[in-house]
Amino acid sequence: MTERAEAIADPTLKAVWSMAELRMIGDGVFYPDVLRLRAAIRSWDDWLREFGRLGDEYEGLAQNAEARGHRVTAGEHYWQAAICWHFAQFLWFDRPEEKLHALHRKVDLYRYAAPMFEPPAERIDIEFDGTRIPGYLRLPDGVSGRAALAILLGGLDSTKEESYHFENVCLRRGLATFTFDGPGQGEYFLQRPLAPDFERYASAVVDHLVTRPEVDPARIGVVGRSLGGYFAARAAAHDKRLRACVVFGALYDLAHFDSIPARTQLGFRFATGIADPDKAKAAAQDRVNLAGVAHRIQQPIYILHGALDILIPTTQAQRLYDEVSSTDKELVIIPDGIHCAHNLYHRVRRPMADWLADKLRN
Amino acid sequence: MTERAEAIADPTLKAVWSMAELRMIGDGVFYPDVLRLRAAIRSWDDWLREFGRLGDEYEGLAQNAEARGHRVTAGEHYWQAAICWHFAQFLWFDRPEEKLHALHRKVDLYRYAAPMFEPPAERIDIEFDGTRIPGYLRLPDGVSGRAALAILLGGLDSTKEESYHFENVCLRRGLATFTFDGPGQGEYFLQRPLAPDFERYASAVVDHLVTRPEVDPARIGVVGRSLGGYFAARAAAHDKRLRACVVFGALYDLAHFDSIPARTQLGFRFATGIADPDKAKAAAQDRVNLAGVAHRIQQPIYILHGALDILIPTTQAQRLYDEVSSTDKELVIIPDGIHCAHNLYHRVRRPMADWLADKLRN
Repeated sequence: MTERAEAIADPTLKAVWSMAELRMIGDGVFYPDVLRLRAAIRSWDDWLREFGRLGDEYEGLAQNAEARGHRVTAGEHYWQAAICWHFAQFLWFDRPEEKLHALHRKVDLYRYAAPMFEPPAERIDIEFDGTRIPGYLRLPDGVSGRAALAILLGGLDSTKEESYHFENVCLRRGLATFTFDGPGQGEYFLQRPLAPDFERYASAVVDHLVTRPEVDPARIGVVGRSLGGYFAARAAAHDKRLRACVVFGALYDLAHFDSIPARTQLGFRFATGIADPDKAKAAAQDRVNLAGVAHRIQQPIYILHGALDILIPTTQAQRLYDEVSSTDKELVIIPDGIHCAHNLYHRVRRPMADWLADKLRN
Repeated sequence: MTERAEAIADPTLKAVWSMAELRMIGDGVFYPDVLRLRAAIRSWDDWLREFGRLGDEYEGLAQNAEARGHRVTAGEHYWQAAICWHFAQFLWFDRPEEKLHALHRKVDLYRYAAPMFEPPAERIDIEFDGTRIPGYLRLPDGVSGRAALAILLGGLDSTKEESYHFENVCLRRGLATFTFDGPGQGEYFLQRPLAPDFERYASAVVDHLVTRPEVDPARIGVVGRSLGGYFAARAAAHDKRLRACVVFGALYDLAHFDSIPARTQLGFRFATGIADPDKAKAAAQDRVNLAGVAHRIQQPIYILHGALDILIPTTQAQRLYDEVSSTDKELVIIPDGIHCAHNLYHRVRRPMADWLADKLRN
């Protein structure tokens, strides 16, 4: 029952499982479902279909629960369906029309589920620069007055729908959360590809948040993972209304582009929206760089990095730490941590939320 | 990183992992910790020590979090320590003094953590028959007026401390929870071994609960798993104040004692408190039997059973279903479910809580 076939012949499939399994469990895919997917997926070509099939199954369970008035269960199952569709399209650049189909399924399921979450997530589309930045606001139970808030940023091929469990970690600690897709991410990729000026989009989000009566405008922080850590650092460098910054999986630049695993290279190229591989690479390198930016960060900053990260060398985390102007700064290197220490999600995420809650305390 | 050695030479260790891995993940042990334990435990002899070591580690993390004022994290880590000590002593009958040490560690850690849970758990010791029945009451957030309540019953070698996550499932659905150790279970084993009249203890608990102003005395139900399902059925048969009953992993009797896996046989013998193996077996068979009892059940009842259960034949679930007098009864056989469908915890537990919440609706 719990045994599984370890011999995976397909190198892409092997690489993706090895990179993604613990991360997806940490972000809320059930371990028994991972076992089932491991058994069903025989080659990379099966990946999207099998994850999608599981998503459909959860959608059916959710509909049944909803029909019976079981709103909590329905919300949980719809979210489960959404995360299945998220991982269905994750690292799937082979047939873009399938990726986009899966992306829309994820977005729609999550959006439908959002009011059923506990606490609910409010969909907000922030008008900016001729586009609408899509995000979700959640407010913690039991907080009187205006709440401190954590803006959560996903990374490459990672989106607002994947932050649900980390949001819950923050919410339990009294923090409101706002999660959005920026340029190159999730559904917003369809409006804007990866951009060199993420900070403008983040500031547009802050512009909105400071108008919300439930949110304390003086107590907003930002948490980003992987490429989202880079975004968080950029945002903090340019917007002092962000009072504290957490970066986990600290990406400084893409000078090492050619040594990044193949699928991740594809991901960066895809996010730029540029078809030509060399031009896309050059654009990604141009748009992801903290040189001349990092020193502008003065806020308290917490940088966490896994020493076994095969996507981002630890030297990048060290460089960010060295260059920020913050007097209150922490660099936490996890010796046995993979990328973002996703293999130790159960140990590293709560302390990050605690740190942020401390920095945003009244 | 995520690969693991599948070749386990020790037959006891192999049997225990196969029985317990998915159950412990479903009850809240983190998958990365299971991977680590799988690597560290080379033979059954290592089991208790390695689980205890992990428990100590979580206790240290909890103390650090508590010292920094991170109460939510502290509560979560103390609970994690408690569940490690729970599984340390789980099926460990080889050196009883070690089992009792681990049991005390579990009990103490859980008790210390209980006020830090969200929502908190209130320790209650109910005086009964010259003993004190130990339990925990938790009240759902956001319920105005008296709450419906689910009494949760663990099974053989399973105790109130293991119900924390199932409690959370109930609490999110607006049900209060009360979880206690009865005869032969957990710390109460030290006062009373496995008894033929569990219903008396359950009724003593109900006697207390109906005095609580937070609880609606007309809306109390009971949920039991495995041997706890047997207890739940007994309690419902004798106490009409229990308005609905959920049994998952439906044990009717122990006529098949000799075909039960060896460790579970040891567990039943241990719970009787009788040293002589044959007498202990006879006592267990005598004390666990629904013949002449099941037909007294008139309440709505939901019986769930895994068709692949190697501890309890499906015929026992069918027999219970056939014999109850309830007009509102459901029998759910999960074709690919192991004992209690623990391998499908993520699918079967929410519907049970929903069913109970429906039956206990105002």
